[in-house]
Amino acid sequence: MEHLILLPNDELQLRLNRLRTAARRLCVTAGDPAPAALLISDNATIYYLTGRVFSGWAYVPLTDESDQEASSPVWFVRRPVEMQGENVVELRKPEEIPDKLAALHRAPVASIGLEMDILPYTTVLRLMKGFPSAKPFNASPVIALARSVKTPMEIGLMAQSGVIHEAVYSHIPALYSPGMNDFELEVAIENLARQEGCLGIFRISGQSMEFFMGNVLTGNNADVPTPYDFALGGAGKDPSLPVGACGEEIKPGSTVSVDVNGDYTGYMTDMTRVYSCGKISDKAMKAHQCSIDIHNEFRRMAVPGCAAADLYKMAFEKAKAAGLEPYFMGHRQHASFCGHGLGIEINEMPVISPRSKDILEEGNAIAFEPKFVIPGTGAVGIENTYIITSSAPRCLTNSPEEIISLL
Amino acid sequence: MEHLILLPNDELQLRLNRLRTAARRLCVTAGDPAPAALLISDNATIYYLTGRVFSGWAYVPLTDESDQEASSPVWFVRRPVEMQGENVVELRKPEEIPDKLAALHRAPVASIGLEMDILPYTTVLRLMKGFPSAKPFNASPVIALARSVKTPMEIGLMAQSGVIHEAVYSHIPALYSPGMNDFELEVAIENLARQEGCLGIFRISGQSMEFFMGNVLTGNNADVPTPYDFALGGAGKDPSLPVGACGEEIKPGSTVSVDVNGDYTGYMTDMTRVYSCGKISDKAMKAHQCSIDIHNEFRRMAVPGCAAADLYKMAFEKAKAAGLEPYFMGHRQHASFCGHGLGIEINEMPVISPRSKDILEEGNAIAFEPKFVIPGTGAVGIENTYIITSSAPRCLTNSPEEIISLL
Repeated sequence: MEHLILLPNDELQLRLNRLRTAARRLCVTAGDPAPAALLISDNATIYYLTGRVFSGWAYVPLTDESDQEASSPVWFVRRPVEMQGENVVELRKPEEIPDKLAALHRAPVASIGLEMDILPYTTVLRLMKGFPSAKPFNASPVIALARSVKTPMEIGLMAQSGVIHEAVYSHIPALYSPGMNDFELEVAIENLARQEGCLGIFRISGQSMEFFMGNVLTGNNADVPTPYDFALGGAGKDPSLPVGACGEEIKPGSTVSVDVNGDYTGYMTDMTRVYSCGKISDKAMKAHQCSIDIHNEFRRMAVPGCAAADLYKMAFEKAKAAGLEPYFMGHRQHASFCGHGLGIEINEMPVISPRSKDILEEGNAIAFEPKFVIPGTGAVGIENTYIITSSAPRCLTNSPEEIISLL
Repeated sequence: MEHLILLPNDELQLRLNRLRTAARRLCVTAGDPAPAALLISDNATIYYLTGRVFSGWAYVPLTDESDQEASSPVWFVRRPVEMQGENVVELRKPEEIPDKLAALHRAPVASIGLEMDILPYTTVLRLMKGFPSAKPFNASPVIALARSVKTPMEIGLMAQSGVIHEAVYSHIPALYSPGMNDFELEVAIENLARQEGCLGIFRISGQSMEFFMGNVLTGNNADVPTPYDFALGGAGKDPSLPVGACGEEIKPGSTVSVDVNGDYTGYMTDMTRVYSCGKISDKAMKAHQCSIDIHNEFRRMAVPGCAAADLYKMAFEKAKAAGLEPYFMGHRQHASFCGHGLGIEINEMPVISPRSKDILEEGNAIAFEPKFVIPGTGAVGIENTYIITSSAPRCLTNSPEEIISLL
């Protein structure tokens, strides 16, 4: 028998409070009454709440904090078997949840929050049936807001990923040999990352984006539009996964942009660095320096209270002032953002885009990636993962920022 | 400008007809009127219909086959940009679909099928708003049924994956060195697979199951229950992804069960083979032979018209007769199936489980995996990918089936 909850109790309470605070804040904004409880089953949020992935449902009361018993979560576990802990209930089907809650003397709730932006339509209908007298509400924005502010423990795990991520990147020039193509280099980097304990999976909320471990782009392949909403493209090896390396030879005069999975702890860092094969064009050098300048300005601006949209505008204006607007965040196709929250998943809040309404908070984790695609050369510009603090952002990905020669 | 549709027109028409036939068949069963059109956006089915993944919506009329113009699909493409082809329409938001359809002189439909088992609740509501006078229906079972019968072209791609899958497995003993742990061997196999062109991603329909590239299990780690509905378990390297290799040393007297990603073409094969470190117990040897015997019986039984549930029962009865029931499909935790359809995704129809209602059809692709977990030794039993034909099933994964020594 193993204990279900792998988090220290203080940490669990901190995360539950984040959910309660987020729920109240969104209700005040929307003018709704405070929601009564959440029923959570998405793996990423289950991991957030317990420190492990399990198959089942976490019932999280949001009210009655004064009554410790009534406000404690109930963990309905389908798999793995043999789990123990307070309020851990074995369960086969979600239809059994209401009866089990009644058996635990939990009062019926007036409203129940479900992950409506994540769970399939038929799954939500099935869960709703169990709570016929409760008003359903969409819990996804509440969960996203709560998870966007990382706890010190979460930041610690991200920092741990960052240290290994940096170590792996420091070996990239040694993995290169002349004549290599982008795919061969990508596979070599993936292999090193896995040897260093990278978990490999790249958690993305929702189903529209797909990715393997990384994006290694060289030459004009960096300019090939993809179906996915990633910052950069690439044709990929097959039309069933049209993104990233395509087998293009790394030629003199081109860059290699490396953006490979940093999930070493369940929490990931996101980092892009650029390598060059011989001398590259002045325009590419200038654009790379522009990206570094934008990062330096980010380090000054990105404090609690800063509007995410202002960070995008700053990046765009600097690119425009340098005459690099046609290349900013892509050339044939442009990404709609230049930064994103991350943690357990790669697409968390806040989003750094022109129309973002997000306001930075202390504890946000942001991957900032002002990049350029220069036709004939490839992609340039760096990406770092930052934690927003009361003073300057803390960078978790501290590899050298200049373009590094592979030769 | 690139052409959106990468499939030959005959192949596209064949797949559209599979959808129409499946829709009619399910309607006859349910007593519903024939559905008018589908609106599809899930990547796997978009790939099925076009031969590529794009971001957008495929509008597929199911009726009016006599009127070629009215029955041809409309391809609403958000990304990638610069796509051409008949009835290819650039689009930013799904709300614009009804107006665009009207502009193409498409008549309003009485019913519209959406992927309700896959798409998030809020996405389905958003799509429904565009068709206020159409009755929405769940298209997921129609799509699953259509895709469960593979076309000759699809079978060709799976066979191509199988050939490379076999070649990679033939090198596994050479990747092993004494003292290695399960994770080190897994990473070495992954690396070889990637070098041979494995696409890496392991498409799973729905969001509850997560996986990286493979499952390499040795000793008692094979007996650790996981949250996921895979045939076998393992603790994994981290509680954020609790499945598979955990860093356990491959010890004398234990087996190594290797079940690694066979997606080399967008279509995957699934294959498990077992390796031994020194002499293993008689019980494990017997269980492995029982798995091979079950496969031999499968080869006799699995013809069109055979009930999937009968295949499960046959496997279970053979295990029971051999006194191996406590170890069949797991020991501390048991999987609820011993085979599954596959193709673009790993969890397609039919399902080989005790309560499955699926009946085998010519063209089904089935990964059949009667396995055993023997405490103290590890997992044994093989998995093959078969195509159901009018005579005996065609095996696409023809690596040697006996236990192979690593020493």
